[in-house]
Amino acid sequence: MINGKRYESTSAGMTSSALSLRDLVLLKRMLLFTREDERYLQMAGEILSSKAETILDIWYDHMVANDYLAHYFTRDGQPDADYLNTLRPRFGNWIRQLCQRPYNTHWSQYEQIIAQRYQDQPMPTDDMKDVPVIFLRYLVTFIYPVTNAIRPFLSEKGHRPEEVEKMHQAWFKAVSMSVILWTYPDPAIQEIC
Amino acid sequence: MINGKRYESTSAGMTSSALSLRDLVLLKRMLLFTREDERYLQMAGEILSSKAETILDIWYDHMVANDYLAHYFTRDGQPDADYLNTLRPRFGNWIRQLCQRPYNTHWSQYEQIIAQRYQDQPMPTDDMKDVPVIFLRYLVTFIYPVTNAIRPFLSEKGHRPEEVEKMHQAWFKAVSMSVILWTYPDPAIQEIC
Ligand code: HEM
Ligand code: HEM
Repeated sequence: MINGKRYESTSAGMTSSALSLRDLVLLKRMLLFTREDERYLQMAGEILSSKAETILDIWYDHMVANDYLAHYFTRDGQPDADYLNTLRPRFGNWIRQLCQRPYNTHWSQYEQIIAQRYQDQPMPTDDMKDVPVIFLRYLVTFIYPVTNAIRPFLSEKGHRPEEVEKMHQAWFKAVSMSVILWTYPDPAIQEIC
Repeated sequence: MINGKRYESTSAGMTSSALSLRDLVLLKRMLLFTREDERYLQMAGEILSSKAETILDIWYDHMVANDYLAHYFTRDGQPDADYLNTLRPRFGNWIRQLCQRPYNTHWSQYEQIIAQRYQDQPMPTDDMKDVPVIFLRYLVTFIYPVTNAIRPFLSEKGHRPEEVEKMHQAWFKAVSMSVILWTYPDPAIQEIC
């Protein structure tokens, strides 16, 4: 029903999970991602887990209200409720994982599983044939909205403004890291393209 | 001296400047980029233009201090001062353009010129042969640092905190847009990969 191949063209082959620990450390350095960020993500995770259903409601409203997203979750011209329901726990799980997992190769393997899941989906059906592939540029456009969306929740539990700011920055870096890992190219295919 | 082809592997062909107005409008919608952001970017531009030299000093220190960046600007094991000096006005110009240009197809053409300039550079020399190509993931890692770096300057001119926040969000979106346009893939090559 949905075309998992859609992310594929962004990455030229996500099957290779060959992200070495060295690569991961380099990416973290470039992102200025530190142990302090891991601590603030844990702090953010406590807030966001307890608010996950509210956050997902907002994301779902946004997905259904904007055609550039809605058409990915549509069948016969209607929002595909079954499909949306199947995805819901996966979105929630991603929020928790992003905050609570140590940022080592285990975590990058979890992100690879998401990438892989897209990849393993069937090719487009007739319903979907006018929907463009999820280009890399589309993933990058979402870093801002996904970063910004959680901001109001972070200040709801009485943390100091500096803590809220640090949690927010850590979340921004973590979302970037997800996008980076989902678009991580296969070195073999890299050679050709 | 530097390998402009380095960005190329991120985009599978940036020569096509075939970003239609329709594509640009869609990308802006996905980014939640509005006319309000254009106004706040103008406001930010006034501050950042007057601070450009200070900002560039900080960026240059960062480039030289971190090997993952420094090696792109090195010749014979030393920072390549000539090359760094040649680039300096181009960095400053990009800051101003990002804030002060209307976000229409003229502006995306300016971004294409940057993309093109990378593309037109010679292939790596011996100096550079151990330096990895600037993969797409590297461009994405920089959205956070480049977004965050300008934050302290925005509050130096007595603007209200809400204005500072709005300027900062607009800058975040604008930096994302640059990265998106630099990695915009050629639809023809898209078909193959
Ligand atoms: C910052 C960028 C993005 C984030 C953080 C994000 C987050 C997620 C998450 C967490 C999932 C569930 C993953 C799983 O466990 O399988 C998902 C699935 C999905 N996303 Fe994204 N997303 C992003 C960008 C986009 C964009 C730009 C589009 C479309 C234009 C999109 C369309 C989809 C679709 C269609 C699925 C379902 C795929 C399936 O059937 O397994 N996403 N996304
Ligand atoms: C948000 C991401 C980035 C931004 C906003 C940015 C900004 C810029 C700008 C404004 C220029 C001058 C463009 C011109 O007018 O020709 C430039 C050039 C350059 N950048 Fe980036 N950059 C980013 C990411 C990176 C990364 C990750 C690397 C390396 C790992 C890198 C390496 C270079 C190099 C080597 C040049 C000189 C290219 C030439 O010789 O023309 N940049 N960058």
